[in-house]
Amino acid sequence: MSARFELIDSEVRWRGRIISAGVERFRYVDGESVKRDKVWHPGAVGVIATDEHAVWLTRQPREAARLTDSLEIPAGKLDVEGESPLECARRELAEEVGLRAEVWDPVLDFHTSLGFCDERIWLFHATGLSPAPGGAMPDHDERIETVRWPLDRIDSAIGESTDSKTLIALLWLLTGRQGVRR
Amino acid sequence: MSARFELIDSEVRWRGRIISAGVERFRYVDGESVKRDKVWHPGAVGVIATDEHAVWLTRQPREAARLTDSLEIPAGKLDVEGESPLECARRELAEEVGLRAEVWDPVLDFHTSLGFCDERIWLFHATGLSPAPGGAMPDHDERIETVRWPLDRIDSAIGESTDSKTLIALLWLLTGRQGVRR
Repeated sequence: MSARFELIDSEVRWRGRIISAGVERFRYVDGESVKRDKVWHPGAVGVIATDEHAVWLTRQPREAARLTDSLEIPAGKLDVEGESPLECARRELAEEVGLRAEVWDPVLDFHTSLGFCDERIWLFHATGLSPAPGGAMPDHDERIETVRWPLDRIDSAIGESTDSKTLIALLWLLTGRQGVRR
Repeated sequence: MSARFELIDSEVRWRGRIISAGVERFRYVDGESVKRDKVWHPGAVGVIATDEHAVWLTRQPREAARLTDSLEIPAGKLDVEGESPLECARRELAEEVGLRAEVWDPVLDFHTSLGFCDERIWLFHATGLSPAPGGAMPDHDERIETVRWPLDRIDSAIGESTDSKTLIALLWLLTGRQGVRR
């Protein structure tokens, strides 16, 4: 039974400000077809910004998940036309945390929920940190607080955060690795 | 600037088979209101099933993300009325991989994409494995292959998988921890 499939049709049923939702149909090489709920998302980046002693995290309300105080790595959506994940990561680190970095290493990228959604997140490790000119400038509808979290207490951040990209980032830091070969 | 908010209204604009999509509005204690795209999802479980030498993984097509061969931990949606995450995890391990487990330890739970979606995934560590009566019985529209992956090659599974729950599970195994305090 082959897992190869082709897209038969794709229908957006609702367009929001950031996402769209609808249905896609696929046909396998053996002829069977399946219908799947689908959410289209522009993708996002997350930044693991560390100095010798700490990782920079944020706290912010996440209304959709009913969290007043979500602990996360700095992050943002790929919502600027033509912007690469790396450019987006530089921009978000400056806007959310007020920092720039000399060194940017790709860590890994992943799908947040690949059963129904095409959202993909690119993680970068940012080092060589210094204050960005102008300081932090969050979007008007964001309420972001910055937290400099000690690296020797990453365990407690993993215990507190319930955000997938942040858990991947912090577990990756704990394993002490230099990047993932793909 | 407080991060506390209340829900003002919640409107489903499209209902799929598994998810719904629409818009929610919230008001902060300082009076400002925000409108957010929202996807409702029933939630899911993931199982980290290990014996002394290996972790049990699956390969399957993921049409929404255009993957023919996604490497993942056994998992499934909370789509049976009244079923707890642990009961769902037992059922999915039997259905997808044909195994049962003596010991079930909660590992951690997280939101896949908390900017717009309420999906939450509960991860369990399953040990004391033995064949389930009847063997694997995947749903009729699933094409799942089982892979017994050596624990000393977890690095290469992390390099291959692009699935958030699987990366969290495998990084957690690498850090060798016994559960996360919340």
